[in-house]
Amino acid sequence: MRKLNVAMIGYKFMGKAHSNAWRQVSKFFDTPFEPIMKTICGRNEEEVKQAADAFGWQEHSTSWQQVIERKDIDIIDICTPGDTHMEIAIAAAEAKKTVFCEKPLANTLAESEKMLEAVKRNNVIHMICHNYRRVPAITLAKQLISEGRIGDLYHYRGTYLQDWIVDPQFPRVWRLEKAKAGSGALGDIASHSIDLSRYLVGEITEVAGMMKTFITERPLPEDKNKMAPVDVDDAALSLCKFENGAVGSIEASRFATGRKNYNHFEINGSKGSIAFDLERMNELELYIEEGPNSGFRRVQVTDAAHPFIAGWWPPGHIIGYEHSFTHTVLDLLKAVDEQKVPTPNFEDGVRNQRVLDAIEKASASRQWETV
Amino acid sequence: MRKLNVAMIGYKFMGKAHSNAWRQVSKFFDTPFEPIMKTICGRNEEEVKQAADAFGWQEHSTSWQQVIERKDIDIIDICTPGDTHMEIAIAAAEAKKTVFCEKPLANTLAESEKMLEAVKRNNVIHMICHNYRRVPAITLAKQLISEGRIGDLYHYRGTYLQDWIVDPQFPRVWRLEKAKAGSGALGDIASHSIDLSRYLVGEITEVAGMMKTFITERPLPEDKNKMAPVDVDDAALSLCKFENGAVGSIEASRFATGRKNYNHFEINGSKGSIAFDLERMNELELYIEEGPNSGFRRVQVTDAAHPFIAGWWPPGHIIGYEHSFTHTVLDLLKAVDEQKVPTPNFEDGVRNQRVLDAIEKASASRQWETV
Amino acid sequence: MRKLNVAMIGYKFMGKAHSNAWRQVSKFFDTPFEPIMKTICGRNEEEVKQAADAFGWQEHSTSWQQVIERKDIDIIDICTPGDTHMEIAIAAAEAKKTVFCEKPLANTLAESEKMLEAVKRNNVIHMICHNYRRVPAITLAKQLISEGRIGDLYHYRGTYLQDWIVDPQFPRVWRLEKAKAGSGALGDIASHSIDLSRYLVGEITEVAGMMKTFITERPLPEDKNKMAPVDVDDAALSLCKFENGAVGSIEASRFATGRKNYNHFEINGSKGSIAFDLERMNELELYIEEGPNSGFRRVQVTDAAHPFIAGWWPPGHIIGYEHSFTHTVLDLLKAVDEQKVPTPNFEDGVRNQRVLDAIEKASASRQWETV
Amino acid sequence: MRKLNVAMIGYKFMGKAHSNAWRQVSKFFDTPFEPIMKTICGRNEEEVKQAADAFGWQEHSTSWQQVIERKDIDIIDICTPGDTHMEIAIAAAEAKKTVFCEKPLANTLAESEKMLEAVKRNNVIHMICHNYRRVPAITLAKQLISEGRIGDLYHYRGTYLQDWIVDPQFPRVWRLEKAKAGSGALGDIASHSIDLSRYLVGEITEVAGMMKTFITERPLPEDKNKMAPVDVDDAALSLCKFENGAVGSIEASRFATGRKNYNHFEINGSKGSIAFDLERMNELELYIEEGPNSGFRRVQVTDAAHPFIAGWWPPGHIIGYEHSFTHTVLDLLKAVDEQKVPTPNFEDGVRNQRVLDAIEKASASRQWETV
Repeated sequence: MRKLNVAMIGYKFMGKAHSNAWRQVSKFFDTPFEPIMKTICGRNEEEVKQAADAFGWQEHSTSWQQVIERKDIDIIDICTPGDTHMEIAIAAAEAKKTVFCEKPLANTLAESEKMLEAVKRNNVIHMICHNYRRVPAITLAKQLISEGRIGDLYHYRGTYLQDWIVDPQFPRVWRLEKAKAGSGALGDIASHSIDLSRYLVGEITEVAGMMKTFITERPLPEDKNKMAPVDVDDAALSLCKFENGAVGSIEASRFATGRKNYNHFEINGSKGSIAFDLERMNELELYIEEGPNSGFRRVQVTDAAHPFIAGWWPPGHIIGYEHSFTHTVLDLLKAVDEQKVPTPNFEDGVRNQRVLDAIEKASASRQWETV
Repeated sequence: MRKLNVAMIGYKFMGKAHSNAWRQVSKFFDTPFEPIMKTICGRNEEEVKQAADAFGWQEHSTSWQQVIERKDIDIIDICTPGDTHMEIAIAAAEAKKTVFCEKPLANTLAESEKMLEAVKRNNVIHMICHNYRRVPAITLAKQLISEGRIGDLYHYRGTYLQDWIVDPQFPRVWRLEKAKAGSGALGDIASHSIDLSRYLVGEITEVAGMMKTFITERPLPEDKNKMAPVDVDDAALSLCKFENGAVGSIEASRFATGRKNYNHFEINGSKGSIAFDLERMNELELYIEEGPNSGFRRVQVTDAAHPFIAGWWPPGHIIGYEHSFTHTVLDLLKAVDEQKVPTPNFEDGVRNQRVLDAIEKASASRQWETV
Repeated sequence: MRKLNVAMIGYKFMGKAHSNAWRQVSKFFDTPFEPIMKTICGRNEEEVKQAADAFGWQEHSTSWQQVIERKDIDIIDICTPGDTHMEIAIAAAEAKKTVFCEKPLANTLAESEKMLEAVKRNNVIHMICHNYRRVPAITLAKQLISEGRIGDLYHYRGTYLQDWIVDPQFPRVWRLEKAKAGSGALGDIASHSIDLSRYLVGEITEVAGMMKTFITERPLPEDKNKMAPVDVDDAALSLCKFENGAVGSIEASRFATGRKNYNHFEINGSKGSIAFDLERMNELELYIEEGPNSGFRRVQVTDAAHPFIAGWWPPGHIIGYEHSFTHTVLDLLKAVDEQKVPTPNFEDGVRNQRVLDAIEKASASRQWETV
Repeated sequence: MRKLNVAMIGYKFMGKAHSNAWRQVSKFFDTPFEPIMKTICGRNEEEVKQAADAFGWQEHSTSWQQVIERKDIDIIDICTPGDTHMEIAIAAAEAKKTVFCEKPLANTLAESEKMLEAVKRNNVIHMICHNYRRVPAITLAKQLISEGRIGDLYHYRGTYLQDWIVDPQFPRVWRLEKAKAGSGALGDIASHSIDLSRYLVGEITEVAGMMKTFITERPLPEDKNKMAPVDVDDAALSLCKFENGAVGSIEASRFATGRKNYNHFEINGSKGSIAFDLERMNELELYIEEGPNSGFRRVQVTDAAHPFIAGWWPPGHIIGYEHSFTHTVLDLLKAVDEQKVPTPNFEDGVRNQRVLDAIEKASASRQWETV
């Protein structure tokens, strides 16, 4: 099999998830290339070395610049915090690498636009890792909508709820600092809900919004006796209008006690409805209007006929969260083979950022804002 | 037992539900008075006569004015469309009757304020029939919140979804005419969600909003070949801020295919969460944070220790929608006995209307509006 | 409207439920007769008087014999404990009354056979109150099965689970005495599961079984310091074969902690499946095989097109447990009008008893037994 | 890290699942050894070569005897059909290898007893792959039961339902031939339910049973026009008694239309209950009796404090079916390190077979049989 050499920048949660995807994809799917996990890169040598061993990378490095310069590297996979994406991605594009970047594309719209410009100018393959598009149940939802099975779309109702910072003693980690994280629940999880709405419903044209910080100061991680301000949102809520006439609400919170990773949406159309919950990601709730004996049905999206499932197990044998990444790199490898830019790509990243930006603006202006 | 004579104005869906409540309440509960179903009143004599027979009223009348003048009537129960509430309620108040009025209190804020003023001036007992407050699971939710079981409140997420007008051929009935109905989904069902938020969370201070009409003209009921405009909202969405710092979203739609009477809310607090769905009204989803083995539990609110249940059946034997009205008139009878104004009353009706009004204003102004 | 005079013997839990049915049926349905709640009968005069008032009976009596002798009584409704059914029912039949009898028909097969013989010989209308057949969702299940929607039947899996005697300190009430109750979980609740299996699947021909008493002595209700033996089953389990080739399991327990009134069944056929849970009695889980996007759908059996629902409320507005009785007396009134014996009747009662009997025998013989 | 060389015999569904476990275990867990995927063995050279490539084995072989003779092999992993287990396992034991064997241990009790004798005589580490014991939710269930959280155990209710052969045109594959498969639903899936009952409740002492074949002949896989008999059970049902006084029912079917991999159990104890469904394997339904506001709670078994989860993802990010195998080989590696026989082992395999045997006997004798 032809091979493609991958270099990963970053090695935390997303590094672990992406590594697993690269390691597994050819074991379960016919890939046009075998991805070679060449090198992993991070600033802390000890930690990145450990990650290389743990995740199965051949080498490690502490200089992303050097990694990008390497002739033998085909794909740069960016898993670092958002404030570093732009520099790395532009350098990778200029080195003519395929660029695969974790979401959000960047911390600001301006940065993300520069990144898009760079990949276009350099004519390289680019992809943003909105992995949930390739949860089989969500891909199936897309198929059903495209086939017109639920008719004209009226409503999108997206809620992404977590509860990991409800405790006021939870420390002021970097994700709660605007300078590093850009925003709170908005960029971290509402962005997923926005991406799914764009994927499944269409482009958002206008938004109203509200951002709320419930706990405005927290102890520092390094010293529990010192308090520091929280300057990002604990929760972000918005209303939105879609180009095609549908209306939506998108809500993200890290203060929804009991909700662990409740990335939920419901779409209502003229002929039916679809609902999904990431905590039960192998299921799709599907309603097809066909008279009094209709009802929301729980489709187990585990059949070989369902998207991506043929690579896995028999019906009723569920797959895990991590395989949304496996499916994403599968399609990236196919895109490289076909030399076509896959979706979602940097264009999607920019459009997502525009919506985030508009929500933030609307929250401040207390008015509806155009995206 | 002491008796109280009731007169009901109106005899359609709500007339049927209220009649059942009056007929049943003393059969299942110790009431301070036996309510006597004296007379029912409506404009169409034939229909109101039929209703009197069907629902068990002793007499019928076509003049609500005459009914209100009767000395032997103690309670006036108003079940007519919203545009007639004010006139009847004020007349009843001035005749010193106890006034029980279906929601919404009126079609406009101005009217509802006059009604409140009238009942106060005449010092009569008044109550608005927001019956869902007395669904046992919701009353239990209120108790749990009041006891601090879910801690400080952060989120209210209310959705009231139906689908009865999704079909574009569904006729332009009076509920779809602004002149008669005041508004669409907003006044009809969002008002319930607002009342529950006020009951369970607190007062709303500011709102953003959007109202949407998906199908802007429909055939006339009386002539399917003639089309008429729909000038009320098919869906109404809003974001809101509460006095106590909680944030909320309230969404109502008649275009949510597959949702029949999905009056759902979720409340997240610092120690736990509560969720409820009217379609499964005998259950309360309750989450109490107590470590990794916590989880949303399905409380069957059918135990004698639960609100109102002692009057009914053993655990696990569910009750129906109509008994939310039975419980409401039970508490009205007790209020008459104690000569105290119960809740929710016309004050609540006015406050509810203020929120509806603000949402409508915000939808037009495209800005946040103060309630 | 023509009238029929009803006399009820017994006034406890079932008396309350039946009374409500008689009181309500003509308020929600077009009945061929108006049932007049003439008299209620019980041994304790004070209590029966109270029940007459509470439930709405015109008179009361302490002699069922006198009641049966009354010329003006048309229907005898038997709600007493099982050991008294035979005597009352036979007397009623001989007095040419319509006989309506709570389940189980009697405490023994021999008694129930005599009762059947009596109603046949006297050519009177007879009905047994297996009320769950007229839960709309179950009636719908029957329709779907009859229409062949789930194909040939393979499996019936019935479990009726409660937990009201899990506490070993719960007293040794009469229901835990074989002499009075006949059996424990078997006759009380497995009998419901058996009736539903006969209604929905067909006749049972053979059974294996096991009866188990977990707590073999308990304090007396009247003196907590004295213990008395429990000689009925806390749980009864059986396997069964149906005439039509289907196989089944039926399990009833009063020791299923957390299950309040979990009367659940699942039926698997060649084209689909049906599942039902009494705690969510307004829903039917329906699976129709139609490829990978099939799934168990939650049908809300609240549409006017569904059995019995047209009498009640709009879609999504649920009804309660008690209306299974209302629907039963509705059909009894129709049967009287048509002078046809309705189902389920004493024949069904006898057949049910034969199955109970066979399970008890199989439990003792440790062998399969023919019904 | 120390290394252990693994050889796998067999390469179909289970071969794929086991391979993945060997490949992944050290990537997510601290293992005492790194397992080296040395060689995979099967009769068809072309297919086994392909499997070696696809699953990541260094070598392949067509002779299991030669593989077992290799000095450098430490672990023999047996994934072949049941009729070949004995010969391979005994040879492996005699060659002093660690033996890891797919369930059922063998097709007959006699064979499984010989296998147990061989591993004991040769004093080697042995394990049977009842992988479901290491689904985190099930391991958690075991912990909760062991801690007495649900009190004394009363009921085990196990149903393992699938529907893959409902279509009568589904061919007569080897799994439907008694000579090759031993039995049908009984050995294939009821055996899982039995293992879980033994793990969670205790030893089974007596059983009653029934085995049913709904479709008694089917087309041959190789020639759809020729029919061949089905001589294994499509469904197997049993009642059972446990040593500790609990009672149980175990039911397995391949004819439960709509149930894909519904391995479900419910356990009722004196203080609470537990329910589990493999199709939602990241959840445990837990009921703890604590008064009227108790309820079955849905525990998301995805917290770092839960069994095995610390190796995976943050709360609410679910894992898939395949990791039950990963956890099993993790514990096997630890057992090798500690030189202790892990559970479940061949002893469990034998005991499981005794129950299967007794059910088959009871089905034929139409009597209860002692295990």
